[in-house]
Amino acid sequence: MKPYREMSKKELKAEIASLHEEYVRYQNMGLELNMMRGKPCKEQLDLSMGMMDALTSDEDLTCEDGTDCRNYGGLTGIQEAKVLIGDMMENNPDNVLIFGNSSLNVMYDTVSRAYTHGIMGNTPWCKLDKIKWLCPVPGYDRHFGITEYFGFEMIPVPTSPTGPDMDMIERLVASDPAIKGIWCVPKYSNPTGYSYSDETVRRFARLKPAAPDFRIFWDNAYGMHHLYDDKQDYLIEILAECKRAGNPDLVYKFASTSKITFPGSGIAAMATSPNNMEDILSTLKHQTIGHDKVNQLRHVRFFKDIHGMTEHMRKHAAILRPKFEMVESILDKELSGLDIGTWTKPLGGYFISFDTMEGCAKSVVSHCKKAGVAMTAAGATWPYGKDPHDTNIRIAPSYPPLEDLKKATELFALCVKLVSAEKIYDDMQNESAQPAAAEK
Amino acid sequence: MKPYREMSKKELKAEIASLHEEYVRYQNMGLELNMMRGKPCKEQLDLSMGMMDALTSDEDLTCEDGTDCRNYGGLTGIQEAKVLIGDMMENNPDNVLIFGNSSLNVMYDTVSRAYTHGIMGNTPWCKLDKIKWLCPVPGYDRHFGITEYFGFEMIPVPTSPTGPDMDMIERLVASDPAIKGIWCVPKYSNPTGYSYSDETVRRFARLKPAAPDFRIFWDNAYGMHHLYDDKQDYLIEILAECKRAGNPDLVYKFASTSKITFPGSGIAAMATSPNNMEDILSTLKHQTIGHDKVNQLRHVRFFKDIHGMTEHMRKHAAILRPKFEMVESILDKELSGLDIGTWTKPLGGYFISFDTMEGCAKSVVSHCKKAGVAMTAAGATWPYGKDPHDTNIRIAPSYPPLEDLKKATELFALCVKLVSAEKIYDDMQNESAQPAAAEK
Repeated sequence: MKPYREMSKKELKAEIASLHEEYVRYQNMGLELNMMRGKPCKEQLDLSMGMMDALTSDEDLTCEDGTDCRNYGGLTGIQEAKVLIGDMMENNPDNVLIFGNSSLNVMYDTVSRAYTHGIMGNTPWCKLDKIKWLCPVPGYDRHFGITEYFGFEMIPVPTSPTGPDMDMIERLVASDPAIKGIWCVPKYSNPTGYSYSDETVRRFARLKPAAPDFRIFWDNAYGMHHLYDDKQDYLIEILAECKRAGNPDLVYKFASTSKITFPGSGIAAMATSPNNMEDILSTLKHQTIGHDKVNQLRHVRFFKDIHGMTEHMRKHAAILRPKFEMVESILDKELSGLDIGTWTKPLGGYFISFDTMEGCAKSVVSHCKKAGVAMTAAGATWPYGKDPHDTNIRIAPSYPPLEDLKKATELFALCVKLVSAEKIYDDMQNESAQPAAAEK
Repeated sequence: MKPYREMSKKELKAEIASLHEEYVRYQNMGLELNMMRGKPCKEQLDLSMGMMDALTSDEDLTCEDGTDCRNYGGLTGIQEAKVLIGDMMENNPDNVLIFGNSSLNVMYDTVSRAYTHGIMGNTPWCKLDKIKWLCPVPGYDRHFGITEYFGFEMIPVPTSPTGPDMDMIERLVASDPAIKGIWCVPKYSNPTGYSYSDETVRRFARLKPAAPDFRIFWDNAYGMHHLYDDKQDYLIEILAECKRAGNPDLVYKFASTSKITFPGSGIAAMATSPNNMEDILSTLKHQTIGHDKVNQLRHVRFFKDIHGMTEHMRKHAAILRPKFEMVESILDKELSGLDIGTWTKPLGGYFISFDTMEGCAKSVVSHCKKAGVAMTAAGATWPYGKDPHDTNIRIAPSYPPLEDLKKATELFALCVKLVSAEKIYDDMQNESAQPAAAEK
């Protein structure tokens, strides 16, 4: 099929009629499918059921250093968990703090701590008139949710396949001390699946922020989440690079096992410099006596070491890969050549990012919804939920069973076609109407 | 033996010499004992090992309402955990929010939330010049640690066996809108073991604070922690009483299973009014996707219901009771009649509160330390660690084995005697020296 824009009005009208008929057919199916959130599916959760047997009443819940995991204490986490998570994050265990079940919670608390008490002796952000925050777009809605909730002014930064626009970031952070942070998902990014290039990471590590308390919030959520054995993205490790660049305290790096074992029952962690750690612990010691050491030990006993985790991630990939490939093949088949949308083909992570023609994303999502398929709200990938061009849609292929995913993606592609065709047809109508109006 | 103050100088000098000899004997034992913190002992932890078998890979980790506990979601906790913890807290499950592993963390976050975003639409506390906080004394050092960290001015409120001085509290909160909260441990209080009388609870529920965002932080840490079957303290339930009094939003009530199952791997909760819950959830939804539901389910499957928990607490009591009784009997035997100290005899909780003669607590703790017995720092039970009369010492009998506890308590009693006798002797010396000086 040729691009919609090259069709005659008559051809396009016929196409719309046919698409509409098909759409009604979907509406009558009574679908109830969900491609909204990056949730692991049941089969992925089943992979970690062995973890439930890792600590039975026959097991000794004592750490290698003699700590009884069942009692109070251990503010920074147990040593063997730091080793495992350090390997996972590619950081020295000495730079790792183990937290509770949610890296989002760690990020929220990190912002909140800076807001209430300031970073490393700097003025608490609550005492400043204005805080600004850089937000590479499209990005993760829950990141933006935190900085919006604290009233920070969020500045969108465009993203390309090599990462966010570093020229813009360098210029902004160097000139404006009100800019205190940036959200980054450096690897298999949410939602594009892009991974930052070596140059991007090097430039991040060499930022010269006007604000001494500017920090990079480096959310390495998908570090282990490759889809392929033979095609994987590798990143320069940011903490080491910051240290080499003479900027050791520039970054907070976050990760968790949420999408490795059980979301909500995993362990979250931060890797950062000794100065930042000391600063964080001066708060943390008032906040808690310690996080869940038994669950830390459970993870360590289950995986044994990073090789165990790598093997485990292969099993996740085996479940996720066909889902990503199915979405991509349907989009290819249905949309290629029509010139009405582009999408990413990630090698890992949880999302595919789709860009419609300008002004179509909301309508596509709403069409999907009316036919029983829930998508992430259009705009969610932008700060304040406002996508200025109304183009970006996040596709989350992980949760639905393969058959459902097939149907949902076919419907999605259909909605893209229908909304785009109608938009182009309306444009044609307006174009032909305008000269007529001018003749009056 | 007669009271030290009634001894002659000569008698007292002999007593000091004998005590000192005994003290040196202890110093040479090379003791390494700890009565510092309210930690359960190994035998108590062993009671909950069955919980490690509650969720094996054979178990279905699905909630009664069909929620898969292994996946994301469930911001307020799973329903069956709300029922169990609701029973434990004597609150309707609809008023219960289940959090992570630490009620201290929930309390910190509750203060922090009020600081960053305000309570129910009121000005965030960070925007106010001055925040004041009421602190019944002696109290819990980690409570005071939070409010000190946020820079609040802490006002000590004296406590009697019926609870804190309600006349003072009523007067202060009614007159000063800068007073935003009060720390309370209403049952088997830390460290006195006192439980609030009915009248005290009723007066708390009827406070008329000048600040609309004044809240009672009601830390019901020891609600289930009776030492005896036949002698137990019962409290009027504060949420219900606040509602009856027309003050439904006045209280945040906290609890956890930290000293029921495993400290650090239990579940924490808050019970509060629907308005407060809505207010909290408006923050919490940005902070996390949900707490550890698998651990919530683990607790529910282990205890089954509140009766299971009550039976379990009897086993804790059977371990703790002899420890409390041993401490009390040694203090009775060694100190009765000497008129140099008083102590509480709680029916539950984790602590015994000891009051020395004025100006002796620090020295007693330091003497203990020099002979190898770690006690909670004198002063820790007061805001800023400053006990104005230097009298209060918190005794934590739970952790050491019975034999160690015996030795530690005997040493403690010895140190009390030694320090008191020396103090009284010094006072006598000064008294007899002064008239002489006046004669010159």
